[in-house]
Amino acid sequence: MEHRLRLRVRYGETDCMGRVYHPNYLSYMECGRVEAMREWGFNYADTERQEDCFLPVIEAWVKYRAPAEFDDELEVISSVEDYSFVRLTFVYEVRRVRDDVLCAEGRVFLAAVDREGEPRRLPKDLRSFLETLDLPPERERRRRNRTGSGVVR
Amino acid sequence: MEHRLRLRVRYGETDCMGRVYHPNYLSYMECGRVEAMREWGFNYADTERQEDCFLPVIEAWVKYRAPAEFDDELEVISSVEDYSFVRLTFVYEVRRVRDDVLCAEGRVFLAAVDREGEPRRLPKDLRSFLETLDLPPERERRRRNRTGSGVVR
Amino acid sequence: MEHRLRLRVRYGETDCMGRVYHPNYLSYMECGRVEAMREWGFNYADTERQEDCFLPVIEAWVKYRAPAEFDDELEVISSVEDYSFVRLTFVYEVRRVRDDVLCAEGRVFLAAVDREGEPRRLPKDLRSFLETLDLPPERERRRRNRTGSGVVR
Amino acid sequence: MEHRLRLRVRYGETDCMGRVYHPNYLSYMECGRVEAMREWGFNYADTERQEDCFLPVIEAWVKYRAPAEFDDELEVISSVEDYSFVRLTFVYEVRRVRDDVLCAEGRVFLAAVDREGEPRRLPKDLRSFLETLDLPPERERRRRNRTGSGVVR
Repeated sequence: MEHRLRLRVRYGETDCMGRVYHPNYLSYMECGRVEAMREWGFNYADTERQEDCFLPVIEAWVKYRAPAEFDDELEVISSVEDYSFVRLTFVYEVRRVRDDVLCAEGRVFLAAVDREGEPRRLPKDLRSFLETLDLPPERERRRRNRTGSGVVR
Repeated sequence: MEHRLRLRVRYGETDCMGRVYHPNYLSYMECGRVEAMREWGFNYADTERQEDCFLPVIEAWVKYRAPAEFDDELEVISSVEDYSFVRLTFVYEVRRVRDDVLCAEGRVFLAAVDREGEPRRLPKDLRSFLETLDLPPERERRRRNRTGSGVVR
Repeated sequence: MEHRLRLRVRYGETDCMGRVYHPNYLSYMECGRVEAMREWGFNYADTERQEDCFLPVIEAWVKYRAPAEFDDELEVISSVEDYSFVRLTFVYEVRRVRDDVLCAEGRVFLAAVDREGEPRRLPKDLRSFLETLDLPPERERRRRNRTGSGVVR
Repeated sequence: MEHRLRLRVRYGETDCMGRVYHPNYLSYMECGRVEAMREWGFNYADTERQEDCFLPVIEAWVKYRAPAEFDDELEVISSVEDYSFVRLTFVYEVRRVRDDVLCAEGRVFLAAVDREGEPRRLPKDLRSFLETLDLPPERERRRRNRTGSGVVR
């Protein structure tokens, strides 16, 4: 279940090479998952404030494919790739809208913690929602991660 | 009592015009006052965590004089211009070290609040410290603010 | 002629005080004027690339009125306040959408320069457009700037 | 050949979770390699401006181990892990100075391009310098990358 978010590159997100400064793709991906979660019925701000569930990034990988420039319209395509009782993995593509060029792809691993930073389970209804997604069986996901481009755990 | 902090322009602090992205000077000024306060015996992180005194910026003014570029070494010159029981004003110059060119000057107004955002007094020993500074009488400061470049309150 | 842009506070735009980090309002204001210019028929990216006209900020003033937090929807209200052959001044309000609270207001002064940083005139059609705006006579604008909150030049 | 850079977490580098916003570690790592290169005799700003050699990040991986907070002093430990005629790989540790806790580790892949973004060789003297480093044989590096934590290519 893919989520697509459009955003425009802001002036301050570029660097003196004239392109998006590379760490900013991680922010775009974050915007993508916040909006994806909102569309799926989970307001991340409320998850933090009301359910005491924070989802810090514990690992991130980005592959930069083509530069994006100021004012380029980008599409951030977010999908859940994997999850467990305590973790969640998103995969991303960031594409330039005008020519559909892939600017970056990435994978971001999140872990559920409470306000004190102690590990906790994902909220029950988020977990229930994830179970409704059509994710490939865990074994295959593991195999794919091992052999495809990306991060080995 | 001036404080001088040297820092180097980071790649990500520039924009596609090839110069420091203008809002970043407010961050440099913040670094300046954090280090100034440390030198004066006040650890701002402790002031927040231990004394429940936060100093959010309530007003800021920056005049941009000359561009700074990636890897330029800058000197942030911070001075307290004014204070009251609940407020503090810093004035700044940001100079390029290699040729002593003034890149930006500014004035930043801070107000003391507690964790809930309620106004409170400046910590007593910070106030005592400020009283030891050789600041011009309030009347003159007011006059100067009215007629010089800067912000009228 | 006001332009209104809605945007959402991103996670990375907040700081450990739990609110929008103050320099980021200058970025919001920049987004506001880029979108305002687009609506008025001027693509700022093209102005830079095709007309060799850059509009760096030469002075900025922000008054912070109320904090905005992660995921708050904000409205950036941008208007041209003043202009000359070589300069342009925008005034701003940034309001929280849910309760229409004013979070910040500001004034940003831009100067037209070419790629080398040399002063130049505003592009002719931008100037023509500005003349169609219903701006108060210059004398009154000057008086207002002197006596209202804001920056004295 | 490790390079160690100390820096302090700035207020604006934190987020509303009270810790360093995760993309900022990529900026810290960039500061690390800029300073490492300077120590090794290569001024990266000059490499760009005078030799028309840019080193954009083409891939990055970060593993977040422990949070860092405002005002924490960090040590960024940078080493070249691998290189070829056209690429360069750095590995990093970012440690909290007061208790030597590992906050993050990462691996960043750079490719040499010219101003137009066309691939080119690393500058000859940088390449000569890299040859003096005591790097393990390529075969072993490849094996290590495949089985250790990190990115598989």
